[in-house]
Amino acid sequence: MKLICTQENLSRGLAIVSRGIGKSPSLPVLANILLTTEKGRLKLQTTDLEIGITYFSGGKIEKEGGITIPAQLFLGYIDNLPSAKVKLEVKDKTLHISCENFEADIKGIDAEEFPLIPKIEKKSICTVAASDLKEALSKVSFATALEEARPEIAGVYMNISQNLRLAATDSFRLAEKTIKLKQPVKGSVEVIVPSRTIQELIRIISEEAKDVDVLVSENQIAFRLDDSELVSRLVDGKYPDYKQIIPKEYTCQAILDTGDLQSSIRTASLFSKTGVFDIKIDIRPKEDEVIITSESGQVGSNVAKIKGKVEGKAEKVTFNYRYLLDGLDHMTASQVLLGVTGDATPACLKPQDEKDYTYVVMPIKQ
Amino acid sequence: MKLICTQENLSRGLAIVSRGIGKSPSLPVLANILLTTEKGRLKLQTTDLEIGITYFSGGKIEKEGGITIPAQLFLGYIDNLPSAKVKLEVKDKTLHISCENFEADIKGIDAEEFPLIPKIEKKSICTVAASDLKEALSKVSFATALEEARPEIAGVYMNISQNLRLAATDSFRLAEKTIKLKQPVKGSVEVIVPSRTIQELIRIISEEAKDVDVLVSENQIAFRLDDSELVSRLVDGKYPDYKQIIPKEYTCQAILDTGDLQSSIRTASLFSKTGVFDIKIDIRPKEDEVIITSESGQVGSNVAKIKGKVEGKAEKVTFNYRYLLDGLDHMTASQVLLGVTGDATPACLKPQDEKDYTYVVMPIKQ
Repeated sequence: MKLICTQENLSRGLAIVSRGIGKSPSLPVLANILLTTEKGRLKLQTTDLEIGITYFSGGKIEKEGGITIPAQLFLGYIDNLPSAKVKLEVKDKTLHISCENFEADIKGIDAEEFPLIPKIEKKSICTVAASDLKEALSKVSFATALEEARPEIAGVYMNISQNLRLAATDSFRLAEKTIKLKQPVKGSVEVIVPSRTIQELIRIISEEAKDVDVLVSENQIAFRLDDSELVSRLVDGKYPDYKQIIPKEYTCQAILDTGDLQSSIRTASLFSKTGVFDIKIDIRPKEDEVIITSESGQVGSNVAKIKGKVEGKAEKVTFNYRYLLDGLDHMTASQVLLGVTGDATPACLKPQDEKDYTYVVMPIKQ
Repeated sequence: MKLICTQENLSRGLAIVSRGIGKSPSLPVLANILLTTEKGRLKLQTTDLEIGITYFSGGKIEKEGGITIPAQLFLGYIDNLPSAKVKLEVKDKTLHISCENFEADIKGIDAEEFPLIPKIEKKSICTVAASDLKEALSKVSFATALEEARPEIAGVYMNISQNLRLAATDSFRLAEKTIKLKQPVKGSVEVIVPSRTIQELIRIISEEAKDVDVLVSENQIAFRLDDSELVSRLVDGKYPDYKQIIPKEYTCQAILDTGDLQSSIRTASLFSKTGVFDIKIDIRPKEDEVIITSESGQVGSNVAKIKGKVEGKAEKVTFNYRYLLDGLDHMTASQVLLGVTGDATPACLKPQDEKDYTYVVMPIKQ
């Protein structure tokens, strides 16, 4: 292999693919980046056997070939080079790098020893605007379950049909966001994508990215961008029928300033009982106000009052403040609707200018 | 105690004094902030028995008094309040706080249980411009020894006479910086200030601060700003006579671009042997260049070439790259002088537009 490319391209590509390396790779070659030439471009690839990331960099290929070299070392070296042309040449299992006054030899492992990254040969199922997808993924993925005890909810649910519907829950709270497809799909496809895949996808989608093509096979999913691609296994299992827990109406609802609600919950959180995370929300339609209180015998107590537009019957509900803040922190609307029905059924937070985003929280039973 | 002050003042004061709380306070009251009234102002104080931090906030005092309350809780609560007037009132060992629609009660401990923070009653020894002091402290303090095995070099040396001279060393490298006093001092005062005190002082000196008055007693030092004061014990011991190791001349010197030298050392660092941190610097007066190399059998090797103005006899010296980078990272000049004399005597880095800053590094013996 012998080629010339720019330091900028190489640095950008390495930043993307190096994220595909696992925390403690089980084989030395899994800590390496695979460099190969393909159709006049340099292809960079990494995998942890669960996900695979590929980046294509333009360049002047003088001789085809490939090698794998340690990812962290290569990334660190390229990042410190001046922004100029970089020459790469493989000789005797060693990559020789030169750039202006810098020269280095990095010892590698044969390209043949690198595991095969699965390819989905089918046509893409759908295409979405990259910025829409990135935003939607950020707005749901935080709600996934952390533990692997129930693997099906440790991922993000994706339903591709007329729209792309994304949902995540850990059984205490749920986030759902729907976005438009470039073209509606006939029939529907349902998959569960591992949380880590979603996190890496969010990182890979740059500000400049336009579209993302989504490809699905029996047990794999691929997200294809202009210059890069992420392939991942799917989570095996059936996603819970979460639609039934989203309340359709409320006995009591309040439209509040999002910032007021956030700061009131935050001050209350300081006084909630250690390990319980409980705060009380008292919704008063008569006074058109919401009172948020918390008390811990050891430290003291707190009361915050928020004025708003309150309708229905008076309700007092206890929540885990962390779940409320998690949801509010992902809302950009200035007004939010809080809808409750008694102190034991799911409550809803809905940003007022974003109808396609819903956040549901279970109260703490008293 | 009963008073009114602004949320901004209180929040700023709490950010400053809360840093004075130790990591694991030995007594509950040491995790608290002491609030008292003094000469029409609210005084906030914390201590870990080694350092004490005081902040004075303007306010309308309606009733004198005092209390101590948990620092983290108070800081978190005040930070989340709207920027408005805050009322504080002590009743029955509890601080009642109210601000617009927020109200809280925080349980405290009597002010009498708070340890006495020493006061230096003498006049100040010298005054320095706050920005000069902050910059100089940052430029030397990183070089102090981490271990407590030799407590005298785990602090920053201060020599107050015609100027203020600051030095720090861990015996492998040394940083020295001299700054002007507002007025020269008769005679001279030498002290060693603990590293943690220096770190907190750097944080306390804000962008807006003008002057810092320095006060010294037998075993205490105080730094006094407009609205705050830091008091600390001094390190007991004699600082090593470091002046003798600063080289006065070199057999070989090179004036180089600071950025080129940094990136060359950084790329070389990636190939240095694990745990040795060694890189080789080859200074070549004939070619007017400096060659930086490193090699590790396992990963590969690297060569970087820097053009510069080189004088004297050719030298090859091995350094710990971390010490070189530490020094260079604190230099803002575009050009730096590297002066060496053989491969076993201290070498010098001097930024070319900052004559009062000197950084000395010991080579690694081969």
